[in-house]
Amino acid sequence: MNKIEGGVTAAAGFSAAATHAGIKSGSTKDDMALVYTEKAAEFAGVFTTNVVKAAPVKWDIELVRKKKTVHGMVLNSGIANACSGVQGIESNRLMAKGVADQMRVEPEDILTASTGVIGYQLPVDAISVGTVELCKKLSEEPASAHAAAVAIMTTDTIPKEYAVETVIGGKTVHIGGMTKGSGMIHPNMATMLCCVTTDCAISKEMLQKALSADVKKTFNMISVDRDTSTNDTYIVMANGLAGNEKIQTEGLEYEAFCEALNEVTTHLAKMMAGDGEGAHKLLEVICNGADTKEHAITIAKSVITSNLVKTAVCGNDANWGRILCAMGYSGVEFDPEIVDLSIKSKSGELALVNAGIATDYSEEKATQILDQEEVTAIIDMHMGNETATAWGCDLTHEYIDINADYRS
Amino acid sequence: MNKIEGGVTAAAGFSAAATHAGIKSGSTKDDMALVYTEKAAEFAGVFTTNVVKAAPVKWDIELVRKKKTVHGMVLNSGIANACSGVQGIESNRLMAKGVADQMRVEPEDILTASTGVIGYQLPVDAISVGTVELCKKLSEEPASAHAAAVAIMTTDTIPKEYAVETVIGGKTVHIGGMTKGSGMIHPNMATMLCCVTTDCAISKEMLQKALSADVKKTFNMISVDRDTSTNDTYIVMANGLAGNEKIQTEGLEYEAFCEALNEVTTHLAKMMAGDGEGAHKLLEVICNGADTKEHAITIAKSVITSNLVKTAVCGNDANWGRILCAMGYSGVEFDPEIVDLSIKSKSGELALVNAGIATDYSEEKATQILDQEEVTAIIDMHMGNETATAWGCDLTHEYIDINADYRS
Repeated sequence: MNKIEGGVTAAAGFSAAATHAGIKSGSTKDDMALVYTEKAAEFAGVFTTNVVKAAPVKWDIELVRKKKTVHGMVLNSGIANACSGVQGIESNRLMAKGVADQMRVEPEDILTASTGVIGYQLPVDAISVGTVELCKKLSEEPASAHAAAVAIMTTDTIPKEYAVETVIGGKTVHIGGMTKGSGMIHPNMATMLCCVTTDCAISKEMLQKALSADVKKTFNMISVDRDTSTNDTYIVMANGLAGNEKIQTEGLEYEAFCEALNEVTTHLAKMMAGDGEGAHKLLEVICNGADTKEHAITIAKSVITSNLVKTAVCGNDANWGRILCAMGYSGVEFDPEIVDLSIKSKSGELALVNAGIATDYSEEKATQILDQEEVTAIIDMHMGNETATAWGCDLTHEYIDINADYRS
Repeated sequence: MNKIEGGVTAAAGFSAAATHAGIKSGSTKDDMALVYTEKAAEFAGVFTTNVVKAAPVKWDIELVRKKKTVHGMVLNSGIANACSGVQGIESNRLMAKGVADQMRVEPEDILTASTGVIGYQLPVDAISVGTVELCKKLSEEPASAHAAAVAIMTTDTIPKEYAVETVIGGKTVHIGGMTKGSGMIHPNMATMLCCVTTDCAISKEMLQKALSADVKKTFNMISVDRDTSTNDTYIVMANGLAGNEKIQTEGLEYEAFCEALNEVTTHLAKMMAGDGEGAHKLLEVICNGADTKEHAITIAKSVITSNLVKTAVCGNDANWGRILCAMGYSGVEFDPEIVDLSIKSKSGELALVNAGIATDYSEEKATQILDQEEVTAIIDMHMGNETATAWGCDLTHEYIDINADYRS
């Protein structure tokens, strides 16, 4: 498997476009994106578990339930189209129809996704003009994929794309994706807008299976602020143009596909966590030695979501008691008196806790290790062999600034 | 029932003291406190559910389990005596013994409580000198109760005391308490250090029953940062000096006691929430119209703990979508399309959401309402008649400042 350039157009037959429709007043950035494949793609999706679901989420869930293939996905940033009632459902349908009419397919061939402020109505005239522009600008160039990744950003500071190629059944297969997400990020079954495309031939059933397994290890293991969004959407579309024999069952080909998908989504997930609103650094928490996988996941997520851990990391303060505390209230039973804890970064590695109490570590060295853009905390519970990794970020002044005045 | 002056010495027979033992280097504030009653008091307690329990929590749990009465409680701030191993257990016992030796009682007659940094060892020589000083300074004056409330503060900005008197069985009964807590506040079964005293005659069993019911409505309904501490301790001591016929069963007297206790602890809990680390304002969330009590509690707590709600409140931004979103991921099933939401403060009241979508409210008026020291959000789920109230605070730059560099 190799990393390759590009994002959602890395796979054969997929094109993309971005445009400025003017969804959020005062903003001049591109705010609509389209991903499209002439050859219909089998597809799968996972979505937010929030009871309050945005109109595009409801639309996509229905398509996943009743359709085998789609031709693309249209996305907008600026307004989430959530808590928008019947009018929101209608304007979402118009967004899909706008693309469908241009491309001479049905509205139900087009997935939708929105991100932005909750409770506002989409400006349907602007959306309508936007969809026409998008269809005109479709291109398979990497620059178009990149423009699409930029168009879906809100408080994100960097676009997030990743692509790989691998060989499946003797054919070269490509998988590429883009994602956005910076605030209201605590995915539960999926993440804030992630669109992955592949030319691999794989059945809808196996695609859904691969995606549902993958999300548990990737997007469900990140958190920026513990707020599970109303709009979380993670879609994979597979148009089969790589020409491999279609994956219909488990086996070596399926495993190779899952591995390549995981490579793409792990990178996208880590990029989201590290680009959390206001974040200065990526915090990785590895929980080793747990008695069950579920406990390892719970412990790792409890630590990355603790505001007190996140602020300590912000201040380069090795206040390890907060990590033990966050483990302790996670709901997992364990013996704190056998836990080990260490931290590492490119500045080195340091044991902070041995059998539940502090080692005689150097605070200066600890601060050096924490003062890096990527920091890892490694827990060993000494209760078994299960392990899990979660990703988050520090909690900073900038998070407050962004969110105390988000709508203006 | 009347509010009266004072705190832990408002009830007959209880005295208090505070002293500077020098537990945290560089600090000159009082850091030890003692609450004492010559007449042995029946007592009850609830404690943190965190798996990682501080040495004083383990000590108190054991005393509640095996003893009927105690004579007092010694408390320190600066070091939490958590994750401190066998040495921590021993230094906690020495703290109780230091008081016991002076007062000629047994170490097991003295409850303990600690708050501060996790993972450090208590300086036993300083503690030993401190206990002697405390016993010399014991006094029933309100000033001593106040000094004790100040001595247990860490990042708190105000001491927290409250006292009431009421008539039970024809006798005037007093209940007074003090509490501390500002960060790592998300009590689960209890709160960060609350000591309540009363001269009411009530059996240990009824006292525990009253306290266990009370905590669900008070300390378990507040959150500052969603971090459940290792040291949460809520103790009530009742020495019976009011001379009422001892409460041994449910009935009017028991109800009067519960009401008075609730009056004290509700005020203490709200003071803790409003004095959350870095907080500029108290946020109250009332959930009405829930189908079950449990759902009302879950919804109210989900909203007060959302970082995105807390930052919006900080910025006086009526970003109500975040409230709906936090309700939606709480785990409670409901119909978002029938929910109403309004906000109020001493500046007025305003309906923001009617049947799941925005009313045509004035943003200017909303900002005026939010720009007050106490702000209430009122949710109506229209699914039943159950209700719950939770208290939290806004999330500010100062929270980051305090916690990015807590230990220095």
